[in-house]
Amino acid sequence: MLHPAQSLQRHGHDAAPWPPIDVCHEADAAGVALRCEVEPGRGGGRKGQRAGHVAHGGTSGVGRSRRSRRRGPGVGTAGQPGPARARRVRRRTNGARGCFDRERRCSTPTYRPALGGVHRARRLPGTGLTTARGTRGTRRCPVTVTWERFDDGVVVLTLDDPDRRNAMTAAMGDELAARCDEVAADDTVRAVVLTGTPPAFSAGGDLDMLEDLARRAREEGFDAAPFMRAFYTRFLRIAELPVPVLAAVNGHAVGAGLCVALAADLRVVATTAKLGLNFARLGLHPGMGGTWFLPRLLGPERAAAWLYTGALYDGASAAGQGLALESVEAAQVLPRTLELAGEIAASSPVVVRQLKRTLQASPQLDLSTALAAEAAAQAVSYGTADLAEGLAAARARRPARFPGR
Amino acid sequence: MLHPAQSLQRHGHDAAPWPPIDVCHEADAAGVALRCEVEPGRGGGRKGQRAGHVAHGGTSGVGRSRRSRRRGPGVGTAGQPGPARARRVRRRTNGARGCFDRERRCSTPTYRPALGGVHRARRLPGTGLTTARGTRGTRRCPVTVTWERFDDGVVVLTLDDPDRRNAMTAAMGDELAARCDEVAADDTVRAVVLTGTPPAFSAGGDLDMLEDLARRAREEGFDAAPFMRAFYTRFLRIAELPVPVLAAVNGHAVGAGLCVALAADLRVVATTAKLGLNFARLGLHPGMGGTWFLPRLLGPERAAAWLYTGALYDGASAAGQGLALESVEAAQVLPRTLELAGEIAASSPVVVRQLKRTLQASPQLDLSTALAAEAAAQAVSYGTADLAEGLAAARARRPARFPGR
Amino acid sequence: MLHPAQSLQRHGHDAAPWPPIDVCHEADAAGVALRCEVEPGRGGGRKGQRAGHVAHGGTSGVGRSRRSRRRGPGVGTAGQPGPARARRVRRRTNGARGCFDRERRCSTPTYRPALGGVHRARRLPGTGLTTARGTRGTRRCPVTVTWERFDDGVVVLTLDDPDRRNAMTAAMGDELAARCDEVAADDTVRAVVLTGTPPAFSAGGDLDMLEDLARRAREEGFDAAPFMRAFYTRFLRIAELPVPVLAAVNGHAVGAGLCVALAADLRVVATTAKLGLNFARLGLHPGMGGTWFLPRLLGPERAAAWLYTGALYDGASAAGQGLALESVEAAQVLPRTLELAGEIAASSPVVVRQLKRTLQASPQLDLSTALAAEAAAQAVSYGTADLAEGLAAARARRPARFPGR
Repeated sequence: MLHPAQSLQRHGHDAAPWPPIDVCHEADAAGVALRCEVEPGRGGGRKGQRAGHVAHGGTSGVGRSRRSRRRGPGVGTAGQPGPARARRVRRRTNGARGCFDRERRCSTPTYRPALGGVHRARRLPGTGLTTARGTRGTRRCPVTVTWERFDDGVVVLTLDDPDRRNAMTAAMGDELAARCDEVAADDTVRAVVLTGTPPAFSAGGDLDMLEDLARRAREEGFDAAPFMRAFYTRFLRIAELPVPVLAAVNGHAVGAGLCVALAADLRVVATTAKLGLNFARLGLHPGMGGTWFLPRLLGPERAAAWLYTGALYDGASAAGQGLALESVEAAQVLPRTLELAGEIAASSPVVVRQLKRTLQASPQLDLSTALAAEAAAQAVSYGTADLAEGLAAARARRPARFPGR
Repeated sequence: MLHPAQSLQRHGHDAAPWPPIDVCHEADAAGVALRCEVEPGRGGGRKGQRAGHVAHGGTSGVGRSRRSRRRGPGVGTAGQPGPARARRVRRRTNGARGCFDRERRCSTPTYRPALGGVHRARRLPGTGLTTARGTRGTRRCPVTVTWERFDDGVVVLTLDDPDRRNAMTAAMGDELAARCDEVAADDTVRAVVLTGTPPAFSAGGDLDMLEDLARRAREEGFDAAPFMRAFYTRFLRIAELPVPVLAAVNGHAVGAGLCVALAADLRVVATTAKLGLNFARLGLHPGMGGTWFLPRLLGPERAAAWLYTGALYDGASAAGQGLALESVEAAQVLPRTLELAGEIAASSPVVVRQLKRTLQASPQLDLSTALAAEAAAQAVSYGTADLAEGLAAARARRPARFPGR
Repeated sequence: MLHPAQSLQRHGHDAAPWPPIDVCHEADAAGVALRCEVEPGRGGGRKGQRAGHVAHGGTSGVGRSRRSRRRGPGVGTAGQPGPARARRVRRRTNGARGCFDRERRCSTPTYRPALGGVHRARRLPGTGLTTARGTRGTRRCPVTVTWERFDDGVVVLTLDDPDRRNAMTAAMGDELAARCDEVAADDTVRAVVLTGTPPAFSAGGDLDMLEDLARRAREEGFDAAPFMRAFYTRFLRIAELPVPVLAAVNGHAVGAGLCVALAADLRVVATTAKLGLNFARLGLHPGMGGTWFLPRLLGPERAAAWLYTGALYDGASAAGQGLALESVEAAQVLPRTLELAGEIAASSPVVVRQLKRTLQASPQLDLSTALAAEAAAQAVSYGTADLAEGLAAARARRPARFPGR
């Protein structure tokens, strides 16, 4: 595979940590999301540390689970830069107030740079890139989906509940959906990366939640279908983003956790991560789109083998079977995914957003209809500044710098 | 691929042979099935032999064709256990009477253990498994589809006309369909394996039958379409079973013979078996679903190459192209397939049967409809004893033992 | 892969060159095709040379671009047979007259052997094959699509504008469509091979044309959709041929150039050729069916990676990803494709033409409808001389020689 020269090389550069975020977020025992409102205070960070996201793909972060980092003393010294320190952001609650009206959406901190006090933008020396980041909340109101934004338009969303191996709850789904809504509303975003705080990508549906639903179904005749449908919708909001989504499957991804990765456009998986849709081994019919995504990626035979046996496969085998674009060492999963995202961000943003819709429609179209749609989309392209730049760059034999309009 | 620890290890255990079956089955010259009724006698077997099905996957049976076994003397001694002896079941005709009303279905011996006299159940020492088996009929009324049942719910159906390389006739199709009807009516069956008596899996449509049809079409203007449609339906009854079907392609599978294997959910093929849809080389448009199954397994390009050239491929190449889950040595095809079937039988039977329907519908659904169907299926799961057991087993970190309800 | 013994072995045989073609064909500056009428004169050729098409797959033609051949002196001596000489056909204009009415179709020389003076049929010694060929026109009226016909029914169409790396214009599309119309009307054609005059297969849409369309869209508000749709239709005429089409991708194939190859049934690609749909890097939405063909060949994930990044891949990687049946050295691309075409030509022509329709319909059908269609197609087969021959050959264990009716 020939990679464009424009690879962003975001990695290995010095960056300052972000300030803590003041946030309040709660969920009831059954995992149903509660509404939180946030009036953030103002935090301070320390300089001289790498960005956390960049770091947890770096070698110095390998093999250290989140849990161990928490317990350990502050080790973010000059001799051991980065991830540990960057992750040990102090959590403040000053100024936070929560109101616990039950509703679907939870207004956790937006990733928008415009939102004062939540975060601070930092320039990555030597790259020309600026990033901004939203990170974890208070102990009382944990934030389970964090985000990071690079100013080439790549946004990283991270399932960030490592003590529970990023197991999925309705509250986490609400946060993810909220972040997706914000991304969808921002015309400057060019690609989204979804990953998990190591060591896992996601262990799948929270076991407490499943037990509660099973108990209510047996004892009360509770019909779980509407709840499940809404549960899927929260997480599969990523499939509706107007830009390409890349899953950086840094560790184990099982059950519904893998399904969310399958909903992305592209996947890079860790060679040793265990991956599978183990529903049939649990006694639960698959959900979260697993029976729809899997046959489309693996073909009908391998999908049947995965689903009927509920077996787990390592990332290298899974990628070989067609589940992912590539498998690389765990430490390289996020860097490699960011590299791919950077290639997409270097393409014409107008075309990429058009393509997202085109590729979603393509399987349902006959050739003739598809050709008519392509002709219409090309007619739009001819009038864009992106194409003018692209043609000029082709004549000059230089890389294009697309304005995105 | 990580295989669950629960692999059934049916192989290598001592088992007694089954008694002969008294059966009457006839077909007319054109291969149209005749109705047979059976009033079976009572046969006796000898102990100390392996089960035939297990055996023809075992090393001691390799390289010995059915034909050679027939001609050879009884060699089932302690020094050479099993397959030869197990296959040399005496055939009795006492008590058999046939009535030859022409009709579609042929009441060959049912596989149900409840049917007296046809067979006897045997316990496989050391495995906890009991098997029952139906085997060949009389010389006058050959049975061309035999069956074997393991009490973990795996049923093996065998195309059993080795002298004719298991070539397909309407009579064989009737037998296969009858066996499938019985399997479909049995809620305790968890998976079905389809294989052929070595050396072939199936040579495809019987050449006599094709010549007869061609002659009638040329000379009498006979429209063969209804006959062919009914011919497909008999064999493709396996595609309508409510449980997963695994094809153990132990040897050559050509033309319609391969199509039947393609109709299964999963395939394991012998590395050296020759596989192909050679219709275009014969001058006959493909049938038996070949033009439907093949593109869905191989993609449009390889399917076109296979069908336009009519070329044959060895099993290793075919599996590499996507025709089968795995290719293994001929002697390992049935054991490996039984291992996979055992993994499926260890999954929740409720979920597996739900999944069969879900995966058949999946290609036709859009994502939204598929999610609604998954939510409904999961709502069913929550009320099942299977899920209660699965959750309890997950908490206890032990394998689940699903009750199947 | 087991190849039939009937491989045609067209290569390495001595053949005479074809006479020049008297032809007039022009296009205006924007690449819009003009109508040409041809009243050809009569040319003469020299004997003792290989056919050009065979040659540019042969070793003696490797590494010599068309451009270098043009510039170089006549080197087609006995010591260096073939390609150089065969390609250095003299171009005559005597007798040609052009009329330049603007219309869609351009009556460039038909490939039909019946058309006097345009070409001369030659027998390939030792093969039993006769070939006829149409080649380049005058300097004033270049022919950009040449053809060659083997008398086993294989027709080779060549994108033949090597100085411009076979970039696609409306005029070239008109020629290709005209050749396809003639092929479609000829019941004796059994397979079509599409290739490009080395070194490229096709560089894609002509840059002048794109710039003109972009300028008109920006300055005049020109709606390019109808033009693009018609542009696709010209080239994708190859997807509507009633016989299999094989693309011999001998060199770089980029953008719309690759799309035309994707529209073929089968592809053989050069290991080192650069292949990709680089539209997003140019700022232009993909056209020419790229967003329809690619996901069907590569699956949704790889197609997304190709289209979003616009990356180029070498032929070996592309074939491994599923873009082509095989990748071979550039010099072997045409020979290997002709070998495959020969295998198809050795199959029953009746069945192959039926299959073309069946495989086009298959993706849209459910299994039951597909089975009904197969039964109807088989009923047709039973009455054919092809099947009678096929069955007789099977009984006699000899290769069939199908009459094609």
